[in-house]
Amino acid sequence: MSEWHLARGYRFAGTVSGLRKEPDRRDLAVIISDTPAAAAGVFTQNRVCAAPVQVSRERLPRADARAVVVCSGNANACTGEQGLADARRMTDLVAGELGCPSEQVLVASTGVIGRPLPMPVLEAGIPRATREAAAGRDALSNAAHAVLTTDTGIKIATRQHSGFTVTGFAKGAAMIGPNMATMLGFVMTDAAVAPTDLHRILKTAAEQSFNCISVEGHTSTNDTVFLLANGSGPPLAGQDLDAFALEVRHVCVELARKIIIDAEGAEHLITIDVDGCRTDAEAKQIAKTIAESALVKTAVFGADPNWGRVVSAAGYSGVTFDEKDLSLWMGDLPLYRAGTPLPFDAAAASGYLKHNREVHFKLRFTLGTGRCTFYTSDLTYEYVKLNADYTT
Amino acid sequence: MSEWHLARGYRFAGTVSGLRKEPDRRDLAVIISDTPAAAAGVFTQNRVCAAPVQVSRERLPRADARAVVVCSGNANACTGEQGLADARRMTDLVAGELGCPSEQVLVASTGVIGRPLPMPVLEAGIPRATREAAAGRDALSNAAHAVLTTDTGIKIATRQHSGFTVTGFAKGAAMIGPNMATMLGFVMTDAAVAPTDLHRILKTAAEQSFNCISVEGHTSTNDTVFLLANGSGPPLAGQDLDAFALEVRHVCVELARKIIIDAEGAEHLITIDVDGCRTDAEAKQIAKTIAESALVKTAVFGADPNWGRVVSAAGYSGVTFDEKDLSLWMGDLPLYRAGTPLPFDAAAASGYLKHNREVHFKLRFTLGTGRCTFYTSDLTYEYVKLNADYTT
Repeated sequence: MSEWHLARGYRFAGTVSGLRKEPDRRDLAVIISDTPAAAAGVFTQNRVCAAPVQVSRERLPRADARAVVVCSGNANACTGEQGLADARRMTDLVAGELGCPSEQVLVASTGVIGRPLPMPVLEAGIPRATREAAAGRDALSNAAHAVLTTDTGIKIATRQHSGFTVTGFAKGAAMIGPNMATMLGFVMTDAAVAPTDLHRILKTAAEQSFNCISVEGHTSTNDTVFLLANGSGPPLAGQDLDAFALEVRHVCVELARKIIIDAEGAEHLITIDVDGCRTDAEAKQIAKTIAESALVKTAVFGADPNWGRVVSAAGYSGVTFDEKDLSLWMGDLPLYRAGTPLPFDAAAASGYLKHNREVHFKLRFTLGTGRCTFYTSDLTYEYVKLNADYTT
Repeated sequence: MSEWHLARGYRFAGTVSGLRKEPDRRDLAVIISDTPAAAAGVFTQNRVCAAPVQVSRERLPRADARAVVVCSGNANACTGEQGLADARRMTDLVAGELGCPSEQVLVASTGVIGRPLPMPVLEAGIPRATREAAAGRDALSNAAHAVLTTDTGIKIATRQHSGFTVTGFAKGAAMIGPNMATMLGFVMTDAAVAPTDLHRILKTAAEQSFNCISVEGHTSTNDTVFLLANGSGPPLAGQDLDAFALEVRHVCVELARKIIIDAEGAEHLITIDVDGCRTDAEAKQIAKTIAESALVKTAVFGADPNWGRVVSAAGYSGVTFDEKDLSLWMGDLPLYRAGTPLPFDAAAASGYLKHNREVHFKLRFTLGTGRCTFYTSDLTYEYVKLNADYTT
């Protein structure tokens, strides 16, 4: 990030409201667009979705979003009617400061499931955070801190292209945390883009980034990604819109990879490339099944080149294929060709897993041109430790 | 097992052939029926299935099975054409001793995936084991030992009912082992039952037992359950056949529970009861999704009454429901009623998980009468350790 560009026309705050046990921990973020912004969102597919997801979903896409408010430490999920009222109240508090209707404010939360929000804390904290919001990198960094749960660091990505900038930040993947829910992403641009284009572009970008990562396959109740376009920069159409879509995808992939690199207890970033399938969807189904196999993930942790686990995971993915349709590589090492095991140097293969932080499995099928790249982490003692901790 | 009955007309062997590294470890089992037996089998649904699965599947159901041969330590999976020839050769070696066609012999394997079988070892070992097979408990126990991989003990269940006996043994669940594949089950009866009835009864029993357990959700390449009925006892029809079906199910459920109790690294047997769904299949889909959530399994390991993980897993199971359709209990403790969290004593709830080896989650929906009981284990440091071990 030596050339560090920031989308124009946004202010940020990340403050300590007192939602969390740690006294100095930032837990409340506000993003304000100086002018009404086109806005789109993508959300968890979980049937049990958090109150802020329900509130934000019914407000999007729209042409005139003014702000986003986010709290961490409490997911406001499985909280019934009270939770919905509390999520709406969070947006009222921002809207009151900005002098706009509540519908122009979006909301997200992350943290413990099943506990009511401590509203007195937020009644005091949200107006203050809204007033403190400022432009610039430091304020963005504060906001990026305030949405974290078990993440070990902030996740920011930014790209500039012919007059517009796309800046995003995110927090930890899927349900990776002890008692925490939620992958959240916030992407801002100063380009002018219509809400329907924005929604289409975000949906495609999320499908190829945030929807291609998994820590343990547990879809959270709170997953949310917002994309705001406030038109401080140029209006986009035609090829410029395609270039914009590409930059949004780059930002989303970079944030998604950062989420996996910082997954709980992770010692490896595992990239699974599947190609030669009938469709992209089938390739993704295979890649996701491998990515979520505890046996594949423990083998990588242990530097065990136990490739039978990868092939057998592909086999139970639900996609129809014959063994002779499949070849497998780990890094550059061919392990399995058209259904037949290949002799290989087990010590070298183990060394590949042991000495690389980023490792790569490639599966090639002979069924078509469908493909997918999927990212996951290994399953370590530390993951079990973090997730077995008492909340009581 | 104080009253310990054994199905009549079967002989067993469990010998040390030298397939495994440990010098005195039994690794080769043979089951012989004194008379031709009706036989049925159920197998893994994995598209990548082992050679012995392919060979046995094409031979079943049948009316005249004479024997089963099983090796442990090598799964004979992902081994191409050579693997198929080797699996057939294993049955030839038994058939040669018994003087019967090879088609009357079934075969199963469990162990490392992707390595050719060491056939010279089996060429010597199988005829010897076949000749050594004997009736009685000690021989059964030897056979039950010879099929184990990372199991810590043998798993036998037996039931007697008005003149007939059903005796079964099994080995470890799903792909629970370091580099091991396979859940295997062998159920013998002395009743006389037609092959088509036998197949139907086994399919139903397996669906409600072995298909309702999961360690980490990794469907192996080698899963196999055989049911043999040699007619040393009475022929069964009508109500007797129903009684037989029930006893087969009891034996299968008992074996399935034993597999989970002995799952790698397990400290808890977790029972998940789901009822009130539209169909049994939907109830099973919800129960299985919860059972395979790493976050649910680590929470139980850590005695963390983190019920939001259970509800959110139900939410991403793919079954459509609203939160108000769902209530949840842990043991006798109500946690969530019709979509609203209930206040509960967190210390008592944690104590329930901490002090019970067997724990219970109950989910009740208001959508119909579909139900399922599913069993799983917790996710522990030991599980990660065992599965991260080097094979190299």
